[in-house]
Amino acid sequence: MGKKNIVILGMGTVGMGFVNTYLMNRETIEGKLGGPLDIRKVLVSSPGKKRPVDLPGDRYTGDFNDLNLEDADVVVELMGGVEPAFTYIKQAIERGCHVVSANKELMAKRGDELIRLADEKGVLLRYEASVGGGIPLINTITDGLASNRVIKMMGILNGTTNYILTRMTRDRISYEEALGQAKSLGFAEADPTADVEGFDAAYKLAILSRDAFGVVARPEEITRQGIKEISLEDIEYGLELGYKIKLLALGEKKKEHVELSVQPALISVDHPVASVNQEFNALFVEGNSLGEIMLYGKGAGGMPTGSAVMTDVMEILINGRKTIGSCKEKKMPIKNIGLSPYYVRMEVLDSPGVLGQIAMIFGEQGISLDSVVQRAKGSEVAPLVFITHDVKRECLDRALEEIEAREYVLKIQSILKVVR
Amino acid sequence: MGKKNIVILGMGTVGMGFVNTYLMNRETIEGKLGGPLDIRKVLVSSPGKKRPVDLPGDRYTGDFNDLNLEDADVVVELMGGVEPAFTYIKQAIERGCHVVSANKELMAKRGDELIRLADEKGVLLRYEASVGGGIPLINTITDGLASNRVIKMMGILNGTTNYILTRMTRDRISYEEALGQAKSLGFAEADPTADVEGFDAAYKLAILSRDAFGVVARPEEITRQGIKEISLEDIEYGLELGYKIKLLALGEKKKEHVELSVQPALISVDHPVASVNQEFNALFVEGNSLGEIMLYGKGAGGMPTGSAVMTDVMEILINGRKTIGSCKEKKMPIKNIGLSPYYVRMEVLDSPGVLGQIAMIFGEQGISLDSVVQRAKGSEVAPLVFITHDVKRECLDRALEEIEAREYVLKIQSILKVVR
Repeated sequence: MGKKNIVILGMGTVGMGFVNTYLMNRETIEGKLGGPLDIRKVLVSSPGKKRPVDLPGDRYTGDFNDLNLEDADVVVELMGGVEPAFTYIKQAIERGCHVVSANKELMAKRGDELIRLADEKGVLLRYEASVGGGIPLINTITDGLASNRVIKMMGILNGTTNYILTRMTRDRISYEEALGQAKSLGFAEADPTADVEGFDAAYKLAILSRDAFGVVARPEEITRQGIKEISLEDIEYGLELGYKIKLLALGEKKKEHVELSVQPALISVDHPVASVNQEFNALFVEGNSLGEIMLYGKGAGGMPTGSAVMTDVMEILINGRKTIGSCKEKKMPIKNIGLSPYYVRMEVLDSPGVLGQIAMIFGEQGISLDSVVQRAKGSEVAPLVFITHDVKRECLDRALEEIEAREYVLKIQSILKVVR
Repeated sequence: MGKKNIVILGMGTVGMGFVNTYLMNRETIEGKLGGPLDIRKVLVSSPGKKRPVDLPGDRYTGDFNDLNLEDADVVVELMGGVEPAFTYIKQAIERGCHVVSANKELMAKRGDELIRLADEKGVLLRYEASVGGGIPLINTITDGLASNRVIKMMGILNGTTNYILTRMTRDRISYEEALGQAKSLGFAEADPTADVEGFDAAYKLAILSRDAFGVVARPEEITRQGIKEISLEDIEYGLELGYKIKLLALGEKKKEHVELSVQPALISVDHPVASVNQEFNALFVEGNSLGEIMLYGKGAGGMPTGSAVMTDVMEILINGRKTIGSCKEKKMPIKNIGLSPYYVRMEVLDSPGVLGQIAMIFGEQGISLDSVVQRAKGSEVAPLVFITHDVKRECLDRALEEIEAREYVLKIQSILKVVR
């Protein structure tokens, strides 16, 4: 293979991880490619800025039109955000370049347009690094599970929230304290909204939905709940009942629809996903023949993510082909109507008969209970925790509305899905 | 793509899983292939036997020469054992057929010859299902980690022994009792030697060594220890000290040599590998850029393994290429000379000063101790458990020889590696 030219858009943490992976493993990489790689041009906003990466200064430019796309074999987009990344990638594809992107927001919001355009133009678009950092999640779904239909996914796809929940669980500290520590350690950004509100995980789930189920999902179609409302009490009651609380991205293919949601949920401590701690990510995938497998690793970081980008570049240059397994796209509605057990915590007046009356309302609504924790606090107000058997969320909401109307119920504090 | 013909050698559990995966996902599989698959011929020892799989009776034959290899696109070998599988595969390759095999013993013992021959003849040989059942371990190493150098692996590669150790740990039953239950549940064979003595895991580690490190290892070059000597006492002391006992396959690439071993070892309960229970398998892989990832799933069973075989068939038919990432083969010596902490349990006379004297001998040999458990049993004999800091095995053995020579030491009962 002759020399291959790479153009990079953006040079932040992942860009530097990409270049450093290349410099570190140059012999291995070029050995497999059968020829040299050349990082020809890098588009950045401040071309003159000093960067801790060993690239000659004349490679940087601030002008997209300076990139000589006609000489580029692969354009690597690592700038993040929808624009101008979308416009740049579109132009690159139209000029016949293959593209690798690590941009989850873009791939979640407008990936289907880019994939269609690349198909039309006969070029390849890969985006392994947009989900799960360095963990080869997409490759595993499209290639490793090629002979299967994927029926279910469950993932911890956001490292920041997993770090926060792990610290709350291990050290019994509050959400605010754990978030503060995550910020000071660099696991959370100054504005943590995208992470703690579940947007980041929803982007990744939207991307996986297309690859695993063949169903294009807009991030806003995914039922989404963040972790800000999770209190230490919920974590402690959860542990007492044999569960950990994790921010879970759930996907399930049903006959006529797809269920997609991101929310904090209780998961049995015996489940392998419950032992995914700190900033680690994991994805559980169930194939209809293979059964369940789990992939685990660091879902972020410059080197892991950069190494996944490089693997995509190599796949394109060596194979020049699409992943074999991509599902045919299907139109299917996205809704969350499935049955699930739920965890409910409420504050009630500590007087005789209250538990019985609440249990009766659940019963009248056809909701049976799996476990109950009642604890006298020596004050007038007592917490009451229920775990239900399988129930539809709307049915649970109806029962809770009735329960909350009773004078002895002060507040319904938490409603969380339970996964076994 | 036109119709593609498959010939299968052997029709046991995995063969039926392969055919059933095909029948179950026919639309998905043929959709991705772009054309029909035809299972043309199946070689079995009793062609007339009734089998619970939906294939016309005229596909079976007892005669290799009946298989019409000139019409076969892919030959799928699922018979197990070295011969006649080796001879059959060799003939298939020589006649220009691609080959998929799920045969760990064969791939471990003579895989390098077959890989070389396939290279020469320009055909493909894939063997994902030979390691880890349905978990795409080899695909992940060769493709998912293509841009990395693999520096370390740690695996639970045998489901039978993991089941036995899990039952011993959870239910505090003896090795014999757990083995009996494994047999009655079908997790262990009537003659469990290949599993409990670590041969099966060593075969798989030998295969992974080639793909991950590029180093061909004969199974007999791998330091190997089985689980028969593991007692409930070891499991209980391990838990008390914060460890579980697992049969671990360990591989590490050093500058001038490769370390490969299979042995029961103590692993910190916080390590994700420690929560791999029952018959599940897992592989931890460390890439030099990616860092650590883990893959987890069922390492055996007809459907998972058959589905991995089908994925290999699809990769060949769609891509007609080698995995991109296979390392260049290197000759490197295989030895186990690395430092490790060790767990040592011994029986001593319960008299004053014994612990001090033993600790002194360790100290004189330059071995420092991480933890000690001493427990009076109210009898003349007491157990004594040590965990050392990093030490070379030969140095530990020297110290233990001296310790065992003392009159107050009745027996050194266990020496196990510790992994953190």
